[in-house]
Amino acid sequence: MSPNNTSSTPKVINPQNSIAEERKAPGFPIRELTYWIDGGKKATELKEYIMLELERDPLWRVNDNPNLTLAETRERAMKKIRRLADQAMSLPLENTMVRMSIISVVDPGFWTRFGVHFGLFVGALQGQATPAQLAYWMEKGALSMQGITGCFGMTELGHGSNVAGLETTATFDAATDEFIVHSPTLTSTKWWIGGAAHTATHCSVYAQLVVDGRRYGTKTFVVQLRDTKTFELMPGVNIGDLGKKMGRDQIDNGWIRFTYVRVPRSHMLMKHTKVLRSGKVIEPPLAQLAYGALIQGRVSMVSDSANVAKRALTIATRYASVRRQFGDGAIETKLLDYPIHQHRLIPLVAQTFAMIFAAREMTSCYRQLMGELGRLGDATGAKADEAIKNLKETHATSAGLKAFCTWMCLNIIDQCRQSLGGHGYSAYTGLAQAYSDFAVHCTWEGDNTILTLQCGRYLVATALEARKGQPLPANLAYLNHVVAQNGSTKSTEPCTGSTAEEVSELRVLEAAWGSVAANAILSAVRAFETGQAKGMSKDNAYEFSSAARLHAARMHSYTYLLQRFVTQVEQSPTALRPVLTLLARLFGAHSAVQHSGEFLQSGFYSGPQIETLKSFVNLACTEVRKDTIPLTDAFGYTDYVINSPLGRYDGNVYEKYFDLVTSLNPQKPVPYFDSLIRPLLERSTESELGPELEIDQEE
Amino acid sequence: MSPNNTSSTPKVINPQNSIAEERKAPGFPIRELTYWIDGGKKATELKEYIMLELERDPLWRVNDNPNLTLAETRERAMKKIRRLADQAMSLPLENTMVRMSIISVVDPGFWTRFGVHFGLFVGALQGQATPAQLAYWMEKGALSMQGITGCFGMTELGHGSNVAGLETTATFDAATDEFIVHSPTLTSTKWWIGGAAHTATHCSVYAQLVVDGRRYGTKTFVVQLRDTKTFELMPGVNIGDLGKKMGRDQIDNGWIRFTYVRVPRSHMLMKHTKVLRSGKVIEPPLAQLAYGALIQGRVSMVSDSANVAKRALTIATRYASVRRQFGDGAIETKLLDYPIHQHRLIPLVAQTFAMIFAAREMTSCYRQLMGELGRLGDATGAKADEAIKNLKETHATSAGLKAFCTWMCLNIIDQCRQSLGGHGYSAYTGLAQAYSDFAVHCTWEGDNTILTLQCGRYLVATALEARKGQPLPANLAYLNHVVAQNGSTKSTEPCTGSTAEEVSELRVLEAAWGSVAANAILSAVRAFETGQAKGMSKDNAYEFSSAARLHAARMHSYTYLLQRFVTQVEQSPTALRPVLTLLARLFGAHSAVQHSGEFLQSGFYSGPQIETLKSFVNLACTEVRKDTIPLTDAFGYTDYVINSPLGRYDGNVYEKYFDLVTSLNPQKPVPYFDSLIRPLLERSTESELGPELEIDQEE
Repeated sequence: MSPNNTSSTPKVINPQNSIAEERKAPGFPIRELTYWIDGGKKATELKEYIMLELERDPLWRVNDNPNLTLAETRERAMKKIRRLADQAMSLPLENTMVRMSIISVVDPGFWTRFGVHFGLFVGALQGQATPAQLAYWMEKGALSMQGITGCFGMTELGHGSNVAGLETTATFDAATDEFIVHSPTLTSTKWWIGGAAHTATHCSVYAQLVVDGRRYGTKTFVVQLRDTKTFELMPGVNIGDLGKKMGRDQIDNGWIRFTYVRVPRSHMLMKHTKVLRSGKVIEPPLAQLAYGALIQGRVSMVSDSANVAKRALTIATRYASVRRQFGDGAIETKLLDYPIHQHRLIPLVAQTFAMIFAAREMTSCYRQLMGELGRLGDATGAKADEAIKNLKETHATSAGLKAFCTWMCLNIIDQCRQSLGGHGYSAYTGLAQAYSDFAVHCTWEGDNTILTLQCGRYLVATALEARKGQPLPANLAYLNHVVAQNGSTKSTEPCTGSTAEEVSELRVLEAAWGSVAANAILSAVRAFETGQAKGMSKDNAYEFSSAARLHAARMHSYTYLLQRFVTQVEQSPTALRPVLTLLARLFGAHSAVQHSGEFLQSGFYSGPQIETLKSFVNLACTEVRKDTIPLTDAFGYTDYVINSPLGRYDGNVYEKYFDLVTSLNPQKPVPYFDSLIRPLLERSTESELGPELEIDQEE
Repeated sequence: MSPNNTSSTPKVINPQNSIAEERKAPGFPIRELTYWIDGGKKATELKEYIMLELERDPLWRVNDNPNLTLAETRERAMKKIRRLADQAMSLPLENTMVRMSIISVVDPGFWTRFGVHFGLFVGALQGQATPAQLAYWMEKGALSMQGITGCFGMTELGHGSNVAGLETTATFDAATDEFIVHSPTLTSTKWWIGGAAHTATHCSVYAQLVVDGRRYGTKTFVVQLRDTKTFELMPGVNIGDLGKKMGRDQIDNGWIRFTYVRVPRSHMLMKHTKVLRSGKVIEPPLAQLAYGALIQGRVSMVSDSANVAKRALTIATRYASVRRQFGDGAIETKLLDYPIHQHRLIPLVAQTFAMIFAAREMTSCYRQLMGELGRLGDATGAKADEAIKNLKETHATSAGLKAFCTWMCLNIIDQCRQSLGGHGYSAYTGLAQAYSDFAVHCTWEGDNTILTLQCGRYLVATALEARKGQPLPANLAYLNHVVAQNGSTKSTEPCTGSTAEEVSELRVLEAAWGSVAANAILSAVRAFETGQAKGMSKDNAYEFSSAARLHAARMHSYTYLLQRFVTQVEQSPTALRPVLTLLARLFGAHSAVQHSGEFLQSGFYSGPQIETLKSFVNLACTEVRKDTIPLTDAFGYTDYVINSPLGRYDGNVYEKYFDLVTSLNPQKPVPYFDSLIRPLLERSTESELGPELEIDQEE
């Protein structure tokens, strides 16, 4: 029997129609924005070609990842290595770079598995080997994984960030012309070594160089871990598997202990420090070029933050445009039509654009700088000094930005996940795993807190030098006021506007952020000077000022992001300028409201102006809301890359979510019904003891 | 050959000694604080008894959880159900409650698996069945899981928070005196139903009551899902497994679809609404008592937030007291000695104490209120009005606090995890899983954003009523100024102090927070009134004010936490008062610095006073640092409950971490060497194409 439907049945709106109406009248040319984000039509087309290629390759299936065991996850990752290695050898570098940037979104654990060899191991050779050594290892197949698979042995159980404090030793034995690599303590065990558990034949081991009883600091040694024919461990090498992690289970992190393992002297990478046959150690004059590799890694993590945030926001905004809830009419209201939901998501869209543009500017600035340094060679003089100064600035800013953007992205992922309600907790909607995979970005390649402090230290030192007359790098021009006024907190003229329009103009926001960043740096300088006045050493005075330094770096990073955003808006095609300008203003204003105390204290904005800024944020959210779906469409990821039924382009979320869950989890009889559930249900209430044993019976 | 150790080998400090020195001179009696936290010596002893009992029961092993598959996780959870069910039946309620509060920290997924039956299913019967119905289901074994295992069928694929919008129907068939339970659409599929996939025989199904073509809203119906003898699905019932989740894999969430399933009329729970044999529907006069169950759930999540935060901070602070890194002497510096590390962790310790005390006061307030309401029965009059008013206040405050504390705890877990550096990313150090398990607390039992808005709506409504002369509840006394001044932003006298001592006194901080909360509520009122002035409906005006409402609820929650903290400090034993006072001040001051804009705008603190408050936070961190380990020791969790080698009481972190990882992941030959790695290493570089096929040869 089928009961009749009643007239009061609520109206159900087809989700495909809900999302289609979002695309009816985009306020800007979507395709043009995609080109602008990707860096041109050609770049977009290459990205699209690669997305399609991956999607069609059965090896690259990813939507069943949550149902794989650790062993299956590791094995599947290994299967993909070979194809990618061959592609990396035969295709142009640009292809590999775009491919890896997509893989870092689709399958971040695999990205790491592959990157350990091609990025870290080969990178160590390229950065630290002499030309002859590099040629030797390349000939042995190190680049193409023919004969050699590498891992990167820096971190130890007891030492991470403090590389100078590593305990593993490499002691020169002049008698045999060898180094003896040894793990003297438990805490010196190499730990977190990606690829060690299952993949690597060789390792670039960071160890204390010891010659004639004297320590020369941490250097790098290539040590063979396994026989390349049998994969048996080499004598003196012990390896174990680190097992389950929070995320990125595709990569087989392991631990390694060395027990007096001998390697030829030539296995020490000697581009910088050299050990001669005699045991004489020749140390390099300057180590500043080593900064370069660090900067590159950090810049790539800013890009990665932007890319992962793009995916998270595509999922969250598409779902919010089809999910309906409450409302006062017959049709429930779309989540995205709620002001509070706009407040949750739309400022994050603006943050994502800020990261996209910062990554691009950072990349081009880095390339330009490396080019300059390359051309300079060993030259000295004013030009070289200038280049070194820029290198230091880029190094510090990239440290702060890496920390700031990875934290920002981690927050975006979790905010997006929470915005999916309960469905965000499913492993099949994509953001739970995205969080777990991404979280490690806040720790590796420099712990975020330590990087932020480094950036803060640079800012303090630069302000101090500027006081002594040194010119400021362009990105720190906002410090001029501080330097000139030498200690006053009012570093710039306060905002005079009163309308929402006036207080949120881009040039006003830039001045506002410059003022706040300058004040924050000034506070850090003061804290440092207070420490020194108390008789502390320079290092201790820096420690004493660490909270203020961290804050200064944070304010500097916001300012940098806003500045780069503005530059990119100015350079953008005319048709995109209105929407990008609005997003830049939203980014600057929303961040300012979140830190309103700083702006009130710097005196840039008054209390009423902050209130006006808040109403601008409300207005901007309402305004951007109209184009939210076109904006996340413009990120240009296919459904394959989005890899979440809730983030589908066509809005058909419920059917596809149901299909995915049911196809991956076919219902079977409950495996432990007979062994566990039946005995539970059928157990007796009677006491098993029977009548009590009475011992005090009367006779 | 063993090379000689060199004289420059760095000094290694035994971690056990590092932590032992932290306990040499505690600034307060640790045991006494434990009693105070737990609610007395007896409560502590019961907790310790239960921790020991669990630790010694092999069924309750938890340190290998990360290595179990989903199927193993589910089965192990089921094994524990029976023991716990029997204990719950035979031991005093207090024992079960303490046991569950420990289990919610040790094994949160199991806590849910057990709680679905005993909390949700039985809770629905107790709250919504008539006495006769309750007796019937109890006799059938519903309480003790003898014959019946239950689940709770509220959420649907397309509806979560909006319970009134659920689509499942229960249509009365007068001819047979039955209800026909039916899932009319895909989105009406019951979703996230814990226990449905593997465990439950019965379900309390939330469905739209339809009688004679008319809808009467969502009511609850007990529907049998499976045959209790064979576990076969009942006719018309389809069930599927939701598979992997972000966390809590112990609980077998499933989906359920009903196809015209008939249940007797008596299976509708009729404590409130009744359907008579004739089809006549009798609706209840007032539904306010239903609030009660909601409040209880929310209060328990505040407790849970406090308990999980205790564990996270025990791990992070103990590790920080043995981990050494950098430093300018021969011995590296403990993480906990770095000011920045103190800033990262110590304010979180203060937050945890705030949550402990708020949970306690909330619980006792709730119990008192329920007692009063019970005594009042159906009485009306001034006393009843007063009780209903208090109920509303407790309901709103508990909604805000549930949201606020679960967000706070989630942040604490991740901050603690990040503070472990790379080791926080291991599955064996405890906090990655803690995050994944805890995250759902922000969504279930009321989505945090929606709850916060509810709280904000109550605050706005109360302020509006107070203007009309209604007296304010005690917790909102700070609103008196606002009401009296009817719109001015200066709601209280500004702070006159200038020293760190003066600006951070508890009574000053209380006034500061009261002033800020009052202003935030006033802003929300203004936004609401602006909406109304624009001609919006009441509901739309509330939507319009949602960002301001959310903010008001947040400020109210901080104020409530601080107030409760102060009350508990005042009632605490003399020996504990100094340390608890310092923690309360740190909580209030640190939170104020984080929201300095609010305090500057309310005019309570000036810019220089905020700077002074910052220096107090620095000082307080340095001061609390001395007692950090005694404080987290006082949380009183055993190593079993801490379940992290990095959080061990004895500080022997490296050995035990190494032992755990190696025992759970014994090294075996790489399983895919022959199939995948060897072919990779040995592949040829030669092109497989051979010579090119030339087609343009000249003839």
